[in-house]
Amino acid sequence: MAYLNENYLKLRAGYLFPEIARRVREFCEGNPEATKRLIRCGIGDVTEPLPRAAINAMKRGVDDLGKRETFRGYGPEQGYEFLRSTIAQHDYRDRNIEIADDEIFVSDGSKCDCGYILDILGDQNKVAVPDPVYPVYVDTNVMAGRSGRANADGSYEGILYLPCTVENGFVPEPPREHVDLVYLCFPNNPTGTVGSRDQLSRWVEYAREHEALLLFDAAYEAYISQPNIPHSIFEIPGARECAVELRSFSKNGGFTGVRCGFTVMPRSLLARTESGRRMPLHQLWRRRWSTKANSVSYPVQRGAEALYSSEGREQIRALVEHYMGNARILRDAVTRGGMTVFGGVDAPYIWVKTPDSLTSWQMFDRMLRDLNVVITPGSGFGAQGEGYFRMSAFNSRENVAEVARRLESLE
Amino acid sequence: MAYLNENYLKLRAGYLFPEIARRVREFCEGNPEATKRLIRCGIGDVTEPLPRAAINAMKRGVDDLGKRETFRGYGPEQGYEFLRSTIAQHDYRDRNIEIADDEIFVSDGSKCDCGYILDILGDQNKVAVPDPVYPVYVDTNVMAGRSGRANADGSYEGILYLPCTVENGFVPEPPREHVDLVYLCFPNNPTGTVGSRDQLSRWVEYAREHEALLLFDAAYEAYISQPNIPHSIFEIPGARECAVELRSFSKNGGFTGVRCGFTVMPRSLLARTESGRRMPLHQLWRRRWSTKANSVSYPVQRGAEALYSSEGREQIRALVEHYMGNARILRDAVTRGGMTVFGGVDAPYIWVKTPDSLTSWQMFDRMLRDLNVVITPGSGFGAQGEGYFRMSAFNSRENVAEVARRLESLE
Repeated sequence: MAYLNENYLKLRAGYLFPEIARRVREFCEGNPEATKRLIRCGIGDVTEPLPRAAINAMKRGVDDLGKRETFRGYGPEQGYEFLRSTIAQHDYRDRNIEIADDEIFVSDGSKCDCGYILDILGDQNKVAVPDPVYPVYVDTNVMAGRSGRANADGSYEGILYLPCTVENGFVPEPPREHVDLVYLCFPNNPTGTVGSRDQLSRWVEYAREHEALLLFDAAYEAYISQPNIPHSIFEIPGARECAVELRSFSKNGGFTGVRCGFTVMPRSLLARTESGRRMPLHQLWRRRWSTKANSVSYPVQRGAEALYSSEGREQIRALVEHYMGNARILRDAVTRGGMTVFGGVDAPYIWVKTPDSLTSWQMFDRMLRDLNVVITPGSGFGAQGEGYFRMSAFNSRENVAEVARRLESLE
Repeated sequence: MAYLNENYLKLRAGYLFPEIARRVREFCEGNPEATKRLIRCGIGDVTEPLPRAAINAMKRGVDDLGKRETFRGYGPEQGYEFLRSTIAQHDYRDRNIEIADDEIFVSDGSKCDCGYILDILGDQNKVAVPDPVYPVYVDTNVMAGRSGRANADGSYEGILYLPCTVENGFVPEPPREHVDLVYLCFPNNPTGTVGSRDQLSRWVEYAREHEALLLFDAAYEAYISQPNIPHSIFEIPGARECAVELRSFSKNGGFTGVRCGFTVMPRSLLARTESGRRMPLHQLWRRRWSTKANSVSYPVQRGAEALYSSEGREQIRALVEHYMGNARILRDAVTRGGMTVFGGVDAPYIWVKTPDSLTSWQMFDRMLRDLNVVITPGSGFGAQGEGYFRMSAFNSRENVAEVARRLESLE
């Protein structure tokens, strides 16, 4: 009989978001009246329509496929040149960051890239992740066999957790010990915090000293409002030798259902074999895409390209302002309610200390039952998230205003 | 320093199609005149515009995303219910095959699914592949560490090759020894042959006896013209206990650049742990999708759904007839040229014995140089493909007629 991948059996029950969905479904089945009032501030999913520029470009892309002269079949496996060069120019070279077109790899989303990237890395790598953290980093490593068993608090043996706490402002310092692979996410999901130039420089310094690889997730880059906060790890000198960056069109262009993102894989980035031979990871990454994929839907790539037009950038700015206006309203309401709040300034998430020493899931159940508002329990992001919850600013203004009103009645 | 996945270093030079692209590029650079005459019958990429039904549905899907009331963000990770149920109903239940909606998993293409599926299977599995075969089956297993080194003929240690030869009509019989995982592809890429009900029944019998898992690739199912040839492995009694089926919209709906396919994973399919515990693979596969993906672009899923409308089915029929008309013209021309030809009756590929004992790559170079026609060298599909080449019927009628004319002049 075929053998299954037993690493899957180490995974703890549900992936966070399906578990939330399950609890909400159960609640709704028992409370048809409350269901009508339900407002979701849980999952980080956008709510506003796509930018018009993307809509128009995607429809033109579809029309291209309807005519023999403009029809396109298989595209380049790493993405169309028109999109790779647009990304490299606007997101990097225009900001004085040296990134070549062929260092951009177009994908069907950052979440997917988190899994794909492990494919080219060896099983021996010692992995460090912030805690709390986007659960996909940990779960994909568990699936790939880079952890031991799950502990009672949801952590896994063999993975180094970097506590993000009030004390360090939710930005971990590099550890004393050696690790090979470090996940960093700024602006952070779930805490909404950002890394300063100094903090990121210390990570690049650590990575260069330990020859570690930084996987830098910048999916929420568009939400940075403070000046002097790096938008890319490649703003830090030396990062081309130690970092991969993951980016997404989900949160700026609202592409959560359209599916497009990219990784930046510098040619200068090396990894090693067991015997000490050094090779560019770029070569393996390129091969991974050639062999295992046919890139992203052509109309979707046209839509992503259009996000960089002046019209597209203007429309993204309006979307970001809308969501960040929501974040301000939520921050204020939660603060008025006497709770301690973090994030929400450079990120569409606010991170709140639960009142009355409630656990994260107790707070989840209370918000669901009493306010009919869905939040995300902090403990779902890791042991250090216990006692916190995340609220997402991805919503209509109307819903957010209503949530703010209901928060006033929270006992 | 981060460790790389050393299995990648076992891979032989280029993946077949990039290598063809490289040789064609080199030829074109040296022969600007011949370049104008170049006709590609190499890669299995469609050439005709998308069916109108898909175009319209995709544009409506894009419009949905442009309006607040119909906007959709993250969809169900395994695919939208509207598509899963349409597939299960039309491709299976309407043909008296028992497949439930939730046994359909929508993906961004069959090539991608080939890689994804290995994720849930253990490293101990002994793998068998036909030879010649679609190179992705082998390469993805090599990348996952399920092979030893490459041999001089392009085969890998540790993988069992099932020779497909003139003698067995290019349909291998089950081996005597035990294997855990068997790839089958019918209609076959590259030979264009199909498996009869009896032949497939012997494979299901083998799989049930050995508790092996069949990975059945039916990407070319729409091209079957002979009656009584199974379109799905699930037409064979017992297959629900031993098979996964891979399907694609690339070759029926022309979705090579749109990206959509699916796997059928029956709930009744079990795999084992090292200690002998048996579990449904469905559960792992579901988890894989939840954790690692956000399904396929919403407008693309709407396009795929539209392929099943009566308009869509009619348009697919016309496309298939067009390409199969091409296949007949190519078959006839090659036969008139004195070469021995297989396939091209139930598949858009014809499989030709090279004349004059040429190797496959010699024939490739000769066709490129003398006729300015790109073919696919059979040896690129495996050692047993040496001495053969594949021609694809995916082309315009005009190009195919021109290739037929040029073949008459082949010395």
